Amino acid sequence: MPPTITAFAASPDRGQGMARDMPVRWAFEEVGQPYDVRLVSFKEMKQPAHLALHPFGQIPTFEDGSLALFESGAIVFHIAQRHAGLLPDDATARARAIMWMFAALSTMEPPITDREATGFTEEGKPGFEDRMARLADRIRTRLRQLSAQLGEREWLDGAFSAGDLLMIQVLRRLHGEGLLEEFPDLAAYVGRGEARPAYKRAFAAQLAVFKAASRD
Amino acid sequence: MPPTITAFAASPDRGQGMARDMPVRWAFEEVGQPYDVRLVSFKEMKQPAHLALHPFGQIPTFEDGSLALFESGAIVFHIAQRHAGLLPDDATARARAIMWMFAALSTMEPPITDREATGFTEEGKPGFEDRMARLADRIRTRLRQLSAQLGEREWLDGAFSAGDLLMIQVLRRLHGEGLLEEFPDLAAYVGRGEARPAYKRAFAAQLAVFKAASRD
Repeated sequence: MPPTITAFAASPDRGQGMARDMPVRWAFEEVGQPYDVRLVSFKEMKQPAHLALHPFGQIPTFEDGSLALFESGAIVFHIAQRHAGLLPDDATARARAIMWMFAALSTMEPPITDREATGFTEEGKPGFEDRMARLADRIRTRLRQLSAQLGEREWLDGAFSAGDLLMIQVLRRLHGEGLLEEFPDLAAYVGRGEARPAYKRAFAAQLAVFKAASRD
Repeated sequence: MPPTITAFAASPDRGQGMARDMPVRWAFEEVGQPYDVRLVSFKEMKQPAHLALHPFGQIPTFEDGSLALFESGAIVFHIAQRHAGLLPDDATARARAIMWMFAALSTMEPPITDREATGFTEEGKPGFEDRMARLADRIRTRLRQLSAQLGEREWLDGAFSAGDLLMIQVLRRLHGEGLLEEFPDLAAYVGRGEARPAYKRAFAAQLAVFKAASRD
């Protein structure tokens, strides 16, 4: 039996592939491994059965025999460790690819999700516009540094890796915000990721879930 | 030659062990491996020689022969992979411990550092108090969930692991904020981490750097 992951029964991103099942689906597709999906509602996510799998009450989870995991970065890492295609064999290159996984989630993502959360929860509150502008500048600083690192490279550090997968998924959150477009090299990098057949299959799979839910 | 890491020549935390070299020092101490430290000033961190090692211009970096890494989570992981003591041998337990490393950095830490940054940069600005209260509630939600996971356990998931090391280091950022103290079980968990001989050696080493810098 293939591993089972959980995903939103009705994703709040309306099928744009921003939910955290997307990088996990993409990782499975890159390594050519099948997976099953169990859909959970927001209500189910807060109930004991799901909390036993995911103490923070979120998606995705991952179950494979006796192993249960949560946290999308950890699940992508587990898939990349078990199957060829997302981490180089050479020890030095492998450590660097894993480093980029952590950099995507620990350094690049926090200011981006911070700005998203502020946009959702604080619009109209005092100081909102100033705060959004400050957060945009924090993101710009990171994008400028990442752009300098990327330089003329196709991917961040040698061949496409799980580090690129997570970084591109993080940068995709900026689509439509104008910030990514200020750095055409990074926009092109994201575009190269989105052009990968594995990405396209993963995106189509999560979109199909949203479309089916919308028909109900 | 042992690996060389970088740390602040004069840490802005005044030797409280909040800088990112602390978890790396702690990891070296847990696995019983020596390491060298090269101190860098804020000015040096933004210069080309350091940016070649760390594109985001921060500390710590890690150099061991031809391998250069940045990002404290990735460096701790590398140390834990190479030396016994921070990750269990059993494959399932190991995947779970790695999962907690990602959970510490991706789920627990962002609201905590977000509140820190807001405290530093927005005091006196419109809506500051409300925003700090909202951010405290976001942190409380996570602490409540983590407390439920910990239950009666000594560590998060079996033996002490790199997941506990990073989680405790993240929770330590709340010292003196009153939030951690609302969850006595989590405060005791952090206390168990800080009582480890390896933690104490790492803490003393970074404090010695700060004290030496203060005498200059």
